[in-house]
Amino acid sequence: MDTEHIQLAHGGGGQLTAELVEQVVLPIIGGQDARGLTDAATLKLGRGRLAFTTDSYVVQPLEFPGGDIGKLAVCGTINDLAVVGARPRALSLGMVLEEGLLIALLKRVLASIAQAARDAGVAVVTGDTKVVQRGGLEGMVLNTSGVGEVMAKARLGFDRVRTGDRILLSGPLGEHGMTIMSQRKGLSFTAELKSDCAAIHGLTMALVDCLGGAVRFMRDPTRGGLAATLVELSRGTGRDVEIEEAAIPVNRTARAAAEMLGLDLLTVANEGKLVAVVSAEAAGQAQTILAGHAIAAQAAVIGTMGRACGQGTPGLVEMVTRVGGRRVVQMPYGEELPRIC
Amino acid sequence: MDTEHIQLAHGGGGQLTAELVEQVVLPIIGGQDARGLTDAATLKLGRGRLAFTTDSYVVQPLEFPGGDIGKLAVCGTINDLAVVGARPRALSLGMVLEEGLLIALLKRVLASIAQAARDAGVAVVTGDTKVVQRGGLEGMVLNTSGVGEVMAKARLGFDRVRTGDRILLSGPLGEHGMTIMSQRKGLSFTAELKSDCAAIHGLTMALVDCLGGAVRFMRDPTRGGLAATLVELSRGTGRDVEIEEAAIPVNRTARAAAEMLGLDLLTVANEGKLVAVVSAEAAGQAQTILAGHAIAAQAAVIGTMGRACGQGTPGLVEMVTRVGGRRVVQMPYGEELPRIC
Repeated sequence: MDTEHIQLAHGGGGQLTAELVEQVVLPIIGGQDARGLTDAATLKLGRGRLAFTTDSYVVQPLEFPGGDIGKLAVCGTINDLAVVGARPRALSLGMVLEEGLLIALLKRVLASIAQAARDAGVAVVTGDTKVVQRGGLEGMVLNTSGVGEVMAKARLGFDRVRTGDRILLSGPLGEHGMTIMSQRKGLSFTAELKSDCAAIHGLTMALVDCLGGAVRFMRDPTRGGLAATLVELSRGTGRDVEIEEAAIPVNRTARAAAEMLGLDLLTVANEGKLVAVVSAEAAGQAQTILAGHAIAAQAAVIGTMGRACGQGTPGLVEMVTRVGGRRVVQMPYGEELPRIC
Repeated sequence: MDTEHIQLAHGGGGQLTAELVEQVVLPIIGGQDARGLTDAATLKLGRGRLAFTTDSYVVQPLEFPGGDIGKLAVCGTINDLAVVGARPRALSLGMVLEEGLLIALLKRVLASIAQAARDAGVAVVTGDTKVVQRGGLEGMVLNTSGVGEVMAKARLGFDRVRTGDRILLSGPLGEHGMTIMSQRKGLSFTAELKSDCAAIHGLTMALVDCLGGAVRFMRDPTRGGLAATLVELSRGTGRDVEIEEAAIPVNRTARAAAEMLGLDLLTVANEGKLVAVVSAEAAGQAQTILAGHAIAAQAAVIGTMGRACGQGTPGLVEMVTRVGGRRVVQMPYGEELPRIC
């Protein structure tokens, strides 16, 4: 394997991305733990805590059923703030445009950004525009960074997870990833499939506000899908994770498309879903809270946190299949799909 | 002229960039004034004010005398926070890498980022990595966003500027732009020329701390150079601006290179300079404060703010030349140089 050059798979959100971050970026940038540099950071500011996050977006095609690169950027950055228990406050917008880009297309994307920000009640307050020569950029790359205030009631972290805590998923898997792939492959039977691209801070803020410290951990399962999120959860907590296949909400079209293309929906990207770990006692209430939101109507309890594995023993993620077997869920290696977000 | 497609000049920091922002971006993103979306924004957070900014970097070549894309990104974002009177607190790092990029080069850039952040006393706290196909990106594009706390003593804004206020410049013009251009053109006599790329928050914080409200306005003259900064100052305040050519600090090599290439140093990019407007009474002290810093040893008072022009009359920027003539300084139209930062 070529270890001297960057490969597309380094951007896939799986094992290779983790290795690039852990072996190349963090040892040099230093001072931060791996989580700190891959998600929203929080820092003390005045009497409160500020959440701060960044994401670059390189999705192709730029426009797709259910959204476009602009909506994706706004929602993705809001979601990174949301899952650390923050109330999103403001976004920045950095645009790198390719020479020759149609200004009409740029206007559509900007309108989508404005709409998504308005819908979410978050302002775009600062920006920057650069232009690069015609070439491999394919239109534009966006960066949205965001700041938010961490809710006073939020008590989140791998160290807050306890044995028996329940894992909730807010809806069916893989709608974003399968939409992008269907667009590229021209799959006609997926006409009704659209990206789940949505801001989830309504979900996270409701959970934290109602359940406080009973909410232990939250994450939006984007690149690398639910599989990557659960493996990170298992590694971070040092605990086994068990999920039930039959409990996972399903979008039949996404499932059919995945089966046809030989993909595992567990590893396909989502852009408007929430994974939350809550105490066993609060799980029912959490499901009710989530299901009250249109984007989480199919929210379900899909699994349970196991005991701590003890020092040096990595946790394992296992799925009890529909037929009662057990299957180990692994971190995807490279990418199922480049430029998914 | 092609008005339907993005051109390289839209990224040059001059009149075309301003038009793109004012005519395309702001009417759609809305709610913000032009300054709000082109520089650091400030927002109330708890008892203080948060400064928040973003910048994308597309410079070619990635490494140049005096710095590289990483140092440029860290310093540029710190500087945007600095000129709104903020103490920089934390940076994000969004990397879009081109497939095939040498990991050894990535490591050098990361080391440079780490060094620049350490030198400035600011932490990189959150990040994101994407990869795009081999093509027109030429290695990498970086985005750094930053947050800082606005100093309690800061009283900055176009509306704070008064007739007779003095304009200070922290050092000679065009070292960054001429270095990049010399690298591309292979000019051998510019061997000793290097980018002025530096964090200027030491300068801005000292000014605000010592002089408080006597500091009216600050800006770092990057793309579009001193000319763009002064035209913006004139437009924003509705006042004429007069500067003296003989007072502007000079780097002889940069000047020779500019003359040879037919460029006006007033329009060439800087990456470690400060333009500050201070009260006439405080101008001497401001110069002394600046000159105490190594990066501003040649700091000089270069001009004066005129009277308000009255409603609807745009201010004019004039330069008294070395031979005693007067010349109008205009906003550069497109770019002297694409991908300068």
